[in-house]
Amino acid sequence: MSLYLRPLKPRSALWRRSFSASARAVPATPAPAFPGEYTHAEIVTKVPGPKSQQQLKRLAALQNTGAINFFADYAASKGNYLVDVDGNRFLDVYGQIASLPIGYNHPKILEAMSDKDNLAMLAQRPCLGVFPPSDWVDRIDDTLLKVAPKGLEDVNTLMCGSCSNENAYKAVFMWFQTKLRGGRPPSEHDLETSMTHQLPGTPNLSILSFQGGFHGRLFGCLSTTHSKAIHKVDVPAFDWPVTPFPKLKYPLDAHQAANEAEEEKCLDEVEKLLKGSAAVTKPEDSRIAGMIIEPIQAEGGDNHASPTFFHKLRDLAAKYDVAFIVDEVQTGGGSTGKFWAHEHWELENPPDIVTFSKKMQTGGYFAKEKFRLKEGYRIFNTWMGDPTKMITLKAVLDVVESDGLLENVNVTGEYLKTGLHEIAAEFPMLVSNVRGQGTYLAMDFPTEAVRNEFVSLMKTKGVTSGGCGVNSVRFRPALVFQPKHAAEYLDKMYEVCEILSKA
Amino acid sequence: MSLYLRPLKPRSALWRRSFSASARAVPATPAPAFPGEYTHAEIVTKVPGPKSQQQLKRLAALQNTGAINFFADYAASKGNYLVDVDGNRFLDVYGQIASLPIGYNHPKILEAMSDKDNLAMLAQRPCLGVFPPSDWVDRIDDTLLKVAPKGLEDVNTLMCGSCSNENAYKAVFMWFQTKLRGGRPPSEHDLETSMTHQLPGTPNLSILSFQGGFHGRLFGCLSTTHSKAIHKVDVPAFDWPVTPFPKLKYPLDAHQAANEAEEEKCLDEVEKLLKGSAAVTKPEDSRIAGMIIEPIQAEGGDNHASPTFFHKLRDLAAKYDVAFIVDEVQTGGGSTGKFWAHEHWELENPPDIVTFSKKMQTGGYFAKEKFRLKEGYRIFNTWMGDPTKMITLKAVLDVVESDGLLENVNVTGEYLKTGLHEIAAEFPMLVSNVRGQGTYLAMDFPTEAVRNEFVSLMKTKGVTSGGCGVNSVRFRPALVFQPKHAAEYLDKMYEVCEILSKA
Repeated sequence: MSLYLRPLKPRSALWRRSFSASARAVPATPAPAFPGEYTHAEIVTKVPGPKSQQQLKRLAALQNTGAINFFADYAASKGNYLVDVDGNRFLDVYGQIASLPIGYNHPKILEAMSDKDNLAMLAQRPCLGVFPPSDWVDRIDDTLLKVAPKGLEDVNTLMCGSCSNENAYKAVFMWFQTKLRGGRPPSEHDLETSMTHQLPGTPNLSILSFQGGFHGRLFGCLSTTHSKAIHKVDVPAFDWPVTPFPKLKYPLDAHQAANEAEEEKCLDEVEKLLKGSAAVTKPEDSRIAGMIIEPIQAEGGDNHASPTFFHKLRDLAAKYDVAFIVDEVQTGGGSTGKFWAHEHWELENPPDIVTFSKKMQTGGYFAKEKFRLKEGYRIFNTWMGDPTKMITLKAVLDVVESDGLLENVNVTGEYLKTGLHEIAAEFPMLVSNVRGQGTYLAMDFPTEAVRNEFVSLMKTKGVTSGGCGVNSVRFRPALVFQPKHAAEYLDKMYEVCEILSKA
Repeated sequence: MSLYLRPLKPRSALWRRSFSASARAVPATPAPAFPGEYTHAEIVTKVPGPKSQQQLKRLAALQNTGAINFFADYAASKGNYLVDVDGNRFLDVYGQIASLPIGYNHPKILEAMSDKDNLAMLAQRPCLGVFPPSDWVDRIDDTLLKVAPKGLEDVNTLMCGSCSNENAYKAVFMWFQTKLRGGRPPSEHDLETSMTHQLPGTPNLSILSFQGGFHGRLFGCLSTTHSKAIHKVDVPAFDWPVTPFPKLKYPLDAHQAANEAEEEKCLDEVEKLLKGSAAVTKPEDSRIAGMIIEPIQAEGGDNHASPTFFHKLRDLAAKYDVAFIVDEVQTGGGSTGKFWAHEHWELENPPDIVTFSKKMQTGGYFAKEKFRLKEGYRIFNTWMGDPTKMITLKAVLDVVESDGLLENVNVTGEYLKTGLHEIAAEFPMLVSNVRGQGTYLAMDFPTEAVRNEFVSLMKTKGVTSGGCGVNSVRFRPALVFQPKHAAEYLDKMYEVCEILSKA
């Protein structure tokens, strides 16, 4: 008999009725229905189906395909439903690894991509840092500046999340060294020594990061990534300091004292490192120039900390005058119920830098003006982003506003979270630690194997979802995910939990 | 009296006639005229003009704008002519830092971007490594595989040039460690130690690179970039080995013996480093896992080496079993007269990895199968490229083939190079070291200041061009650059040289 097998309580049947799609006991959302969306998921083959497998075989002759789920029919996909090449239609709560902002084939995006006024921009890939398009500043005004975090005047567009974090680190190092030079630009000696990686031109500086954090997979950001060994093994790394992220107990309000103590312990560790760094006098000894943190550790397992923790962390960064970088690559763009997750903290002193990508469709970072370089070509690459993604982003932000999608996220998230809590109560040996904000939710399973089995079974029911950490499932639906979609998810989840509990 | 002032010889007038646009003594090219292209450059304001300056001022409130030349009107640009917001029309020999494949607004690209069959791909940004589009393998077949370097079966798409090089390095490090493990995957101990950057999980490996090389600006690739200090200063770096690139004398055939000796000296240095690395027995000591080289060092000043040099280098890499990575980010895509510049070497043993971006519109790398990872998620990011760029690339490669653009590059390059040699002969104190293959040409000026003055004056005549190295000008026009455009360039160059020689 399985560990998870328990007699079903009478409450279960009641619960199922109240959430079942037919009962439709779902809350109202201000968001309109997604035009022409499917009504439900539908599975017609094994997954991956024969057509996916055929494509997979071809691709496997060219590259590793270990991460591929199936081949998608993007033309047939709509709203929250991702259709595969075999005609299977999935309810998508993974959202292209959290990078799908307003569902598949939203009419406003299709319209923007068909707009003749945008054709010249689709047909070129300009160097935005050298020959920006005539309407480039207008495009930034209409998109990134509209959602710029309070107190951050500067913005740079970049290629992807990793590229955004690495360039943020570069900006921090340049700012830090300029500060040490009393505001002067690099000297001839600095320039010369940098060519052979000697001091002082190549300084011994670091970015402090947190255990369980994920900030990308390039050499600089991978040195600050500590979520999973498979990303890191065999790759040389900078030996930069890493410190524990709080391991909180859920639900948070039931464990307030223990969680506060845990956070204080982690803050003490941070201060110890910052104090040590501030005491450094020899240039050959390593100094911390900045720290990076996710508002919710995503890849590492949807680990949360309290606003108080982040307040104190931000204050520590200010006290020791190191940069406070908030990595909103995954949390940014609305899915926590605020446009930026760090808004939930209500900081008086804003972050120094906020990085973004994924749902924003373009990479980049916002920063306080003090991180703006005085010399050209220092934060630079050939393309510096892609203006076509700004066309998408404009449509996305217009829809977020016109359709009340932040409110939709809050309504849907609350409903989904309540449902998850109730299922967790039904299957306490199976589902635990339901947590999150907005639709940026997660839950734990007893082991990695059970989590993987859950994700697999959900796929057979027509749900694509993603794991995170060792034994967690993360919710990363598009902002158009509505209570009715949550109900469909919960119904299927209940069925799968019943199967797993009897296994 | 200026150093460059000399009496004009009678030959000059004759020369000018033979190259002047009116005389049209230009060779035939198989390439058709670019449909609806302008006939010539035209400058109507100071550059940057008032409208560019207005936009520049707005942008300067948000970011450093030190690299911006002017704001472009991409809808009005056509073929080889880049139009700015003030109505100035430039002959473009810089080609968006070598990333413009077939000119502005090519009808085939406009058509592809307007094709309803491509709309769904323009409207989503899928995770290519997890949910690739149904036609993804067809798209790779129709584009990248058609131009895959001989002997390289594998291909991965990535974000940009830096990202491509960094992922190539990762693949090399993983291959090297797997080799040391006798083909086994990482052990539990490897995985555990990688999380804290300890041996053996985080190995002490390096990529060997060359002085003057440029491989990008992220932390790993920047550690192998040695072109200009402004890219490197204030940024921590891996202390990886760097070795001299041959400093050849031009014209190459007039200095054969001296150049051969110089190349041998550089090869000896490489072998010394490889030998030292091969003798390492302690895991804490640094080993070389691969080397990276550009076929023509671009950013570093268009520095050439002979095919013999590259043959011997490739053989050294094979002898010591380290990976031989050829960085074709700038040289790839046809502008040297072959699709890949390394084809000019006619290697029997192909490179291990060839990286690309720029003219290819998407980043990525080709590799021998032995660099394919056995485990998923090791060469990975959220997007793994962008399928919309494959739509562009398809149109580009179709046009390269149908319009005979490689042949056009050879005809035009030969004509342009001859003209440059003749101008250099007219102004020997001003122009020297004319060099290159196809239209991938360069020339030197006596100092950085004179070079900059030349580029500025050319701009006032309606030519956008780019510098490289300390005192060089590089030619990076699109593949649709024809002899008539070269004639227009040469006429203007002659005028500017006359001005500079009298200054």
